[in-house]
Amino acid sequence: MIEELRRTVCRLHTELVRYGLVVWTAGNVSGRVPGEDLFVIKPSGVSYDDLTPESIVVCDLDGHLVEGDLAPSSDTAAHAYVYRHMPEVNGVVHTHSTYASAWAARGEAIPCVLTAMADEFGGEIPVGPFALIGNDDIGKGIVETLTGHRSRAVLMQNHGVFTIGESPKAAVKAAVMCEDVARTVHISRQLGEPLPIASGDVDSLYDRYQNVYGQRSHL
Amino acid sequence: MIEELRRTVCRLHTELVRYGLVVWTAGNVSGRVPGEDLFVIKPSGVSYDDLTPESIVVCDLDGHLVEGDLAPSSDTAAHAYVYRHMPEVNGVVHTHSTYASAWAARGEAIPCVLTAMADEFGGEIPVGPFALIGNDDIGKGIVETLTGHRSRAVLMQNHGVFTIGESPKAAVKAAVMCEDVARTVHISRQLGEPLPIASGDVDSLYDRYQNVYGQRSHL
Amino acid sequence: MIEELRRTVCRLHTELVRYGLVVWTAGNVSGRVPGEDLFVIKPSGVSYDDLTPESIVVCDLDGHLVEGDLAPSSDTAAHAYVYRHMPEVNGVVHTHSTYASAWAARGEAIPCVLTAMADEFGGEIPVGPFALIGNDDIGKGIVETLTGHRSRAVLMQNHGVFTIGESPKAAVKAAVMCEDVARTVHISRQLGEPLPIASGDVDSLYDRYQNVYGQRSHL
Amino acid sequence: MIEELRRTVCRLHTELVRYGLVVWTAGNVSGRVPGEDLFVIKPSGVSYDDLTPESIVVCDLDGHLVEGDLAPSSDTAAHAYVYRHMPEVNGVVHTHSTYASAWAARGEAIPCVLTAMADEFGGEIPVGPFALIGNDDIGKGIVETLTGHRSRAVLMQNHGVFTIGESPKAAVKAAVMCEDVARTVHISRQLGEPLPIASGDVDSLYDRYQNVYGQRSHL
Repeated sequence: MIEELRRTVCRLHTELVRYGLVVWTAGNVSGRVPGEDLFVIKPSGVSYDDLTPESIVVCDLDGHLVEGDLAPSSDTAAHAYVYRHMPEVNGVVHTHSTYASAWAARGEAIPCVLTAMADEFGGEIPVGPFALIGNDDIGKGIVETLTGHRSRAVLMQNHGVFTIGESPKAAVKAAVMCEDVARTVHISRQLGEPLPIASGDVDSLYDRYQNVYGQRSHL
Repeated sequence: MIEELRRTVCRLHTELVRYGLVVWTAGNVSGRVPGEDLFVIKPSGVSYDDLTPESIVVCDLDGHLVEGDLAPSSDTAAHAYVYRHMPEVNGVVHTHSTYASAWAARGEAIPCVLTAMADEFGGEIPVGPFALIGNDDIGKGIVETLTGHRSRAVLMQNHGVFTIGESPKAAVKAAVMCEDVARTVHISRQLGEPLPIASGDVDSLYDRYQNVYGQRSHL
Repeated sequence: MIEELRRTVCRLHTELVRYGLVVWTAGNVSGRVPGEDLFVIKPSGVSYDDLTPESIVVCDLDGHLVEGDLAPSSDTAAHAYVYRHMPEVNGVVHTHSTYASAWAARGEAIPCVLTAMADEFGGEIPVGPFALIGNDDIGKGIVETLTGHRSRAVLMQNHGVFTIGESPKAAVKAAVMCEDVARTVHISRQLGEPLPIASGDVDSLYDRYQNVYGQRSHL
Repeated sequence: MIEELRRTVCRLHTELVRYGLVVWTAGNVSGRVPGEDLFVIKPSGVSYDDLTPESIVVCDLDGHLVEGDLAPSSDTAAHAYVYRHMPEVNGVVHTHSTYASAWAARGEAIPCVLTAMADEFGGEIPVGPFALIGNDDIGKGIVETLTGHRSRAVLMQNHGVFTIGESPKAAVKAAVMCEDVARTVHISRQLGEPLPIASGDVDSLYDRYQNVYGQRSHL
């Protein structure tokens, strides 16, 4: 089970590279081990070229290393805090992707002006507090911002993005879509104000996408 | 015949990826089956990496699945509406490509200030209405906007782009060119107003390109 | 000799793709046949994937097809005009690269605010007139703008870029560098006015780069 | 020892290409030969495709060629000056990367508004003077700007970026991170003023990252 999850999480890191969400060794993906108080995560400061399933480390929900030869990601405490406080979350992703981080540096939420954004995020993408690394402040900021919010992405002020999902793959999808809508809305606003989408329409789009899109209803 | 078309439409999806018009599973290409009331289209929510000719599904012109193991694209109703009402159209493409969607989010047509745009689109690229998914509203918006218009691309407000063509390849070309001119005109306008092209010159460029460009006149 | 030049010109087209200067079938490279009143050029409307040395066609200096199975580029008349009037030119490149075309759409020259621009272009990159395809107007505009000018690139208004060189490779280099400086100067100006470089310093940089850079002085 | 360093420095050049920091033959990486008054550097005007460990040349600390068949980079004097005056530096990188050069063209330092920037650079990325190539002015500008500064990157006015490091790899990392933060801060500022990070927080982030990140504390 853990071996399979390590392979999955290792492979999902290549999506961060493919979509240009990360440079050098920044960014990380984690996944909860089903039925155990454990999760797997990228080791700290390791190049994406060098990631292998074996290099992915296993941590307990306090963020302590349980298995693996390398030190875990320096963002491990934030991932652990999310897994402790959001039992429905099985995957967490962190990036400094360019456009999302540009909104985060201004501390500004991304307004919902695209149907794809209503589909995936059900409204605006919110901003979380400025928080230093080294204790639970980042984790708390993520959990407090996303609890009771439809969005599975949060822009941590002056920092970058954290996304959550029912699986590591869903969290990676949210990270990819977050950067995509951050970029499109940014570019749209450069030449004027994008048109708002009525909140009732945002609700309809979100409900439909969550229930009808993909192979869910067909299979 | 259908097998050949499935191969063609499957392969054309790789052009959307190559030109950066799509992320994750968003976007789709369809093609009308010559001489039949059928078209083929991307299945819903399937990764571009996993597309095979066999995974491309066949639908009738009401958008109902006729052949294939997967649910058709969630945009199938819009494609079907176009095929029902525009008999000269044999290919339809939908994307959320960044710059075109940025114009769409402001509900603003792209002005014709580039000779390449006059060549391909014969003038501005128009905006279609805001429309929710789930009935014929998107299809109607596409057909009403493009009927009697030279442009083979329409910016659906707050949504993205639909393009049409005499073949699936021509519709893909229109999608590629639409994003290219959306980007160039956006960037040009960031530092001032682009110079207009006289409408008589737009007409000359369009006529020439449609009749002389490529290997048409030579073969 | 012609076979070798066809191979070279075919291969140089891949640089336009690599640096993102072209989409679909737009853009073209040509090269003068040494010692003959001939040049080779891309065929019209052919995909970059499908270009082979055999598909590159041979034209005389009036732009008429002399050898090859395909119709020559629709820009052949402009290339021919340059070869007829600028005997020192042995390579010509045409693209609609994004940032250069954005300056061209405003009819605005790119000011020399980067040392790399002084090195390669010896000052600003000038604008040529608006001209329709179909006669010698584009060719005339290129030759009149670049004659007596250090720049080997011209921004044709509302159209795109033409570059010239002592070889096809030099013209391709100028096209790559033109887009690079067009992009950097554009981005610089988005947040304020770039600092000018004194004209004496531009002269020094240009002289040195033309005479000292590369393996010239060493070999 | 020198052979190993040539292989390392040759390979590091591919990172400049991968991250889009260079076009054509521009840009270069050098590395100090441990325990000797020598360094290795890219040859002048050679394509990144054609770089091999054998083509990397060896120079003394006055920038004179000691070993190799090709002329050294035209920026060799600047690298040599840095190695003569900063004994702790073992790697130097120079690029004209787009966003960093855009700040440099305005002569404007990049403000520290991202935690990743505090981590890597410990504050703003400073601007060095305008300087012509051909003597020690560029080298002097680099050394005077970076001495006593936490940043390992300097924006040389109207020119581009130089970065330094305890190893060639560290200098390449600084070049990659410099462009990444130059881009994100630029984009953030396009739509408003990014929020400052308190200087005490910048200090904490810098201290922690320099001492805790990666596998350092673990191994």
